[in-house]
Amino acid sequence: MSGEAPIALTMGDPAGIGPEITLRAWQAHIEGAAPRFFVIGDPACYAARGAAISRISAPKDALSTGKALPVLPLTLADEGTPGKPNAANAAAIIESIERAVTLALAGEVPAIVTNPIAKAVLYDAGFAHQGHTDFLGALTAQAPHARPRGPVMMLTAKNLRVALATEHIPHQKVPDELKTETIVRVAQVVADALRADYGIAQPRLAVAALNPHAGESGKIGDEEDRIIIPAVRRLAESGIDVHGPLPADSLFHAEARAKADAVICMYHDQALIPVKMLDFWGGVNVTLGLPIVRTSPDHGTGFDIAGKGIARADSLIAALKTAEEIAARRAAQ
Amino acid sequence: MSGEAPIALTMGDPAGIGPEITLRAWQAHIEGAAPRFFVIGDPACYAARGAAISRISAPKDALSTGKALPVLPLTLADEGTPGKPNAANAAAIIESIERAVTLALAGEVPAIVTNPIAKAVLYDAGFAHQGHTDFLGALTAQAPHARPRGPVMMLTAKNLRVALATEHIPHQKVPDELKTETIVRVAQVVADALRADYGIAQPRLAVAALNPHAGESGKIGDEEDRIIIPAVRRLAESGIDVHGPLPADSLFHAEARAKADAVICMYHDQALIPVKMLDFWGGVNVTLGLPIVRTSPDHGTGFDIAGKGIARADSLIAALKTAEEIAARRAAQ
Repeated sequence: MSGEAPIALTMGDPAGIGPEITLRAWQAHIEGAAPRFFVIGDPACYAARGAAISRISAPKDALSTGKALPVLPLTLADEGTPGKPNAANAAAIIESIERAVTLALAGEVPAIVTNPIAKAVLYDAGFAHQGHTDFLGALTAQAPHARPRGPVMMLTAKNLRVALATEHIPHQKVPDELKTETIVRVAQVVADALRADYGIAQPRLAVAALNPHAGESGKIGDEEDRIIIPAVRRLAESGIDVHGPLPADSLFHAEARAKADAVICMYHDQALIPVKMLDFWGGVNVTLGLPIVRTSPDHGTGFDIAGKGIARADSLIAALKTAEEIAARRAAQ
Repeated sequence: MSGEAPIALTMGDPAGIGPEITLRAWQAHIEGAAPRFFVIGDPACYAARGAAISRISAPKDALSTGKALPVLPLTLADEGTPGKPNAANAAAIIESIERAVTLALAGEVPAIVTNPIAKAVLYDAGFAHQGHTDFLGALTAQAPHARPRGPVMMLTAKNLRVALATEHIPHQKVPDELKTETIVRVAQVVADALRADYGIAQPRLAVAALNPHAGESGKIGDEEDRIIIPAVRRLAESGIDVHGPLPADSLFHAEARAKADAVICMYHDQALIPVKMLDFWGGVNVTLGLPIVRTSPDHGTGFDIAGKGIARADSLIAALKTAEEIAARRAAQ
């Protein structure tokens, strides 16, 4: 893996805020406030939005485009109408991700960062995944990875890290999808990543409960007793520094945050409410347990605000920085 | 209702932190940092913890006890062993609440504040309620109340107010218990209370979604479409300024908090995670829609730390202040 080549950024849905935050992040790079990257997308999409671009044919070319945004080209059905997603673009949106992964697996880029996609648009084109995270898991499943394998979705905001035991599923399905095995695997991947990717020698994990008051010893739900406590016990027996299940409302204030390097959350909003509360604009989504480094902004496509010039690139810039840091730590090992 | 009599404070479970935070709150009162109150409890419980106490026989007597804690006496089976709840005390714990409610309904006290109870201890004595909130609803159900009737549980922390559409039930049961009718009633009680008890002329309500990303138009759960959207529509038609359902992770950062006077939450942790994150020690639980004023600290009995001298009274003191403010606003109407 070369630490010199720039990060590969996927296009995301061109009808969302992806193109404009890409240009803002590029401006931040020019000003020294973001790592160098190139985007895998349709040059017309960025040119139409006023960017100076430079077509490249390989990642290394991106090192010498000066102030022009380096674009590894692919072709969209249209160049992206803000707020009007087009299913005809689905194939190119997916191709951008696949090409980024191929480059990362080949060691031609140190990391990939993905712009937001809208699953509804891709479903119509036959996309069969919950989202980026499991798609990336599938794309990298055959590649060797001598560490606990994910994918695991972790979000970071300031001094908070939260990992998800279940992801984009209805509230009602969480209890059925929550398995002791899954919690154990997620926590193992997180503990490994905190050591290898974040340089934390002795990571401390907290595990959130599912029910209010952590179930009050079975009086408010039994998932703690049936599912979560056995997972915590197995993790502790394997030598991981882990506590829980703890009431979810006692895990995210400043004192609690100082006591754990990551919190294993049972469902999406349990993790996302604290992340967004702590840093609404700058949160980062990191996929752990992959043979490649992948981060993304923690927001969606923003179809409702696309093209209005108000989208903030804080989260994308933070994602680029995080990707660079993790890649550097892996490269040094 | 007399605005002059002090607030009635219930004893709570004497094996928890109730007695010690009561003494701390009394000290705060002596120092001018908390409203005057009296406690309905066993004098021995407070005397054993080093307090100067004064037995009273009516609320008004509490105005003239000087620095001695006024105690309206009842008799416990034991005076409370820290960390060792005793089911033999259940009857007295419940009696303390009932007497406070009777005094408030009779207009002898302007408000009641309740110390934490442990439902498990009371269940063994035949207590059949989820908690204080619905017990207080039952105790006051026959009293006239010319406003939308609750009880509704609302929590406040700094500039955040959250009300609960479901309370202490398992995660799994939330979708079944969530009814359009309940959300409408809760929001109506909250809107009325914001006007009458908080002096907000045009209250703005936000309604949280149940599912991640507010269900993504039905792709991640259908409760938004089936249950929540019809409730929001009815509320808007009735003239309430209401928005939603909104993704729960977009409702609690500073900018969002500035846009709503209260958030209607679908389940306990959705409301409590932000409250505890914003102000872990000073949150207040307010019961809306009762003919009496009732607040409480937003924490539990703390059996694990009782008697160690480390329990903080911030939340109880905040609850006393909130009760005083609401009572004053009602008295002025």
